[in-house]
Amino acid sequence: MVDMNEPISTTTYLDRIARARASMAATGVDVLLVSVGSDLPYLTGYEAMPLERLTMLVVPRDGEATLVIPRLEAPRVVEQPGVFELQLWDETEDPVAIVARLAGPPATVAVGDTMWARFVVGLLEHWPSNTTQYLRSATVMSALRMCKDAAEIAALQAAGAAADRVAGQLHAGEIPLVGRTEAAVSADISARLLAEGHDVVNFAIVAAGENAASPHHHASERVIRHGELVLCDFGGTMNGYCSDITRCVSIGEPPAEVADAYAVLFDAQAAGMSAGVVGAACEDVDRAARRIIDDAGYGEHFIHRTGHGIGMEAHEDPYMVEGNTLPIAPGHAFSVEPGIYLSGRWGMRLEDCVVATADGPLALNDADHSLVVVEC
Amino acid sequence: MVDMNEPISTTTYLDRIARARASMAATGVDVLLVSVGSDLPYLTGYEAMPLERLTMLVVPRDGEATLVIPRLEAPRVVEQPGVFELQLWDETEDPVAIVARLAGPPATVAVGDTMWARFVVGLLEHWPSNTTQYLRSATVMSALRMCKDAAEIAALQAAGAAADRVAGQLHAGEIPLVGRTEAAVSADISARLLAEGHDVVNFAIVAAGENAASPHHHASERVIRHGELVLCDFGGTMNGYCSDITRCVSIGEPPAEVADAYAVLFDAQAAGMSAGVVGAACEDVDRAARRIIDDAGYGEHFIHRTGHGIGMEAHEDPYMVEGNTLPIAPGHAFSVEPGIYLSGRWGMRLEDCVVATADGPLALNDADHSLVVVEC
Repeated sequence: MVDMNEPISTTTYLDRIARARASMAATGVDVLLVSVGSDLPYLTGYEAMPLERLTMLVVPRDGEATLVIPRLEAPRVVEQPGVFELQLWDETEDPVAIVARLAGPPATVAVGDTMWARFVVGLLEHWPSNTTQYLRSATVMSALRMCKDAAEIAALQAAGAAADRVAGQLHAGEIPLVGRTEAAVSADISARLLAEGHDVVNFAIVAAGENAASPHHHASERVIRHGELVLCDFGGTMNGYCSDITRCVSIGEPPAEVADAYAVLFDAQAAGMSAGVVGAACEDVDRAARRIIDDAGYGEHFIHRTGHGIGMEAHEDPYMVEGNTLPIAPGHAFSVEPGIYLSGRWGMRLEDCVVATADGPLALNDADHSLVVVEC
Repeated sequence: MVDMNEPISTTTYLDRIARARASMAATGVDVLLVSVGSDLPYLTGYEAMPLERLTMLVVPRDGEATLVIPRLEAPRVVEQPGVFELQLWDETEDPVAIVARLAGPPATVAVGDTMWARFVVGLLEHWPSNTTQYLRSATVMSALRMCKDAAEIAALQAAGAAADRVAGQLHAGEIPLVGRTEAAVSADISARLLAEGHDVVNFAIVAAGENAASPHHHASERVIRHGELVLCDFGGTMNGYCSDITRCVSIGEPPAEVADAYAVLFDAQAAGMSAGVVGAACEDVDRAARRIIDDAGYGEHFIHRTGHGIGMEAHEDPYMVEGNTLPIAPGHAFSVEPGIYLSGRWGMRLEDCVVATADGPLALNDADHSLVVVEC
């Protein structure tokens, strides 16, 4: 049994840094630079503040890793002996110059995917791109981060179960809809995600009626009415790992057209989940779900990929999209979320997350998958 | 009287784009590319989702601006006739290639400061840095965004007043401290920021006793005790503009050493506020506050700059730091927040935000500046 409240050990970080170095060797990367985002806490346990003062872990393929950090933020760092050295910088120093000194001019550098562009612009002054090849940190890190270990899978399961409990409250009619705004319901769902154990809410899409035809609709002041389909897509971060679930409810019995489309969606989502087996290509998950929606005549209304990886980030590698031939491996965690969107009328999506294992897909959500009818 | 609930008009965006183009001409920038962050909503009203699917506004110095956006997010956009054209991309397309086609190979490109590095890496494949000069979007945008207009100042005032009301609740003893964890008090302050009108909480630092010696301390499970100094630094975003205030309270009468240090801090903060006049250099604000702390013998314990600009972002240009000789201009909004930190013992900081005007500094906060003694 994995105890998720147990802090990750220094040994784990040492192992991850060693595997990152092996991945650097395999991909021909001389220096890895990570800053804001999830690569840094994955490798060190420390999360950079998303501010203008640079925090950057400098990992040469050979030699000590160094965490370059503003002096005033140094007390935040939990040191991990052997994992990194600390290099503090003062307010009037240029941290990019410090990084450039530490890391050499490298032939090939991999920079954090979500690092702020201003720091890449700063690095280019030291290392122009015709003499230093720039790659994404994903080139080095995705292979590591995609394969979740037992503790990571346990954290994803716990976050998924917490999101399921909120979905269950929605299904049970405990979250009133009629007469409230989408924004009010979104705030309600957000509060429930926190109450069920999430540390942060990442999003809580609530889209009623025609608004649900916008897949990333921002919950608005639009009042929800009886007779409408309401799409709720929500998730947060719990102990460092994300949840993500979508359920639709019908307020009152749905019209036949909606019920029929939902039956197609239900089958498409189940087909996608079944296709997510070790050895299949990521695009096979997309194809399995899409084929059913295509065959039912709704193909042009399924306007996005079928899924995304999930872990420390709500969206990460691997993506379940046509063209992604990456074979699914044990520990890959991802969403399966086909949708059907009729512009100006209604929209629906059904989403679970799943982990691929040697024993088959391990679903991270089990809230009722049917189009539950609520009356409030 | 500025009505902050009035949406910003298309005319305002047209004017801002025109001024951005004038700034591009002045700084020799051929193409401006902005994505995640505040430059995009400042120019168009649209905020990019911070996700792996690229949203990017392409602004050539001459010619139409184009918003490149994922097809599934297009329904979120409020079109602004004449401000930008829309260019949708599908899930299997390469949006960086679309941007590269739209923007030619430019001699000089300015990329959004907070754009994700992965997209700069993508651009470098099309435009190496030895033939295209890369600059930060701040090169173009800071001059515009630093000078707040009347509506922006009104929004900053409203956000500041909301934060002041929470500080007032702290001073009045309405936020219990003793026996609660820093994290619980942080959550309480966060809820009050929302209740007072903020749309989002950006941070709520609560640091008790020795924890306050870490300026960016993350509110922890540490229980707050009687007799301690508690530093609270909090702010959020309201109608698109940020608040930021720091107040310390003493639970019970403070020891003489703390009271004496606070008197120094009080004077230093007041000196910084008074120095923030039109025509002074930004570094003059830092020097005015620092001199008082230096003279009292606490210089080595004031380990950060005196302030940062504030607006759509919690930290933005201009920075009140030694070496920044930029003259303060009407409409510049910034924090003044000296601090004194004794490692392992206690820390204190006092912060207001202020707008420079032709009539002198306009304070955005007026909560009690003294070291208020609370008993709960």
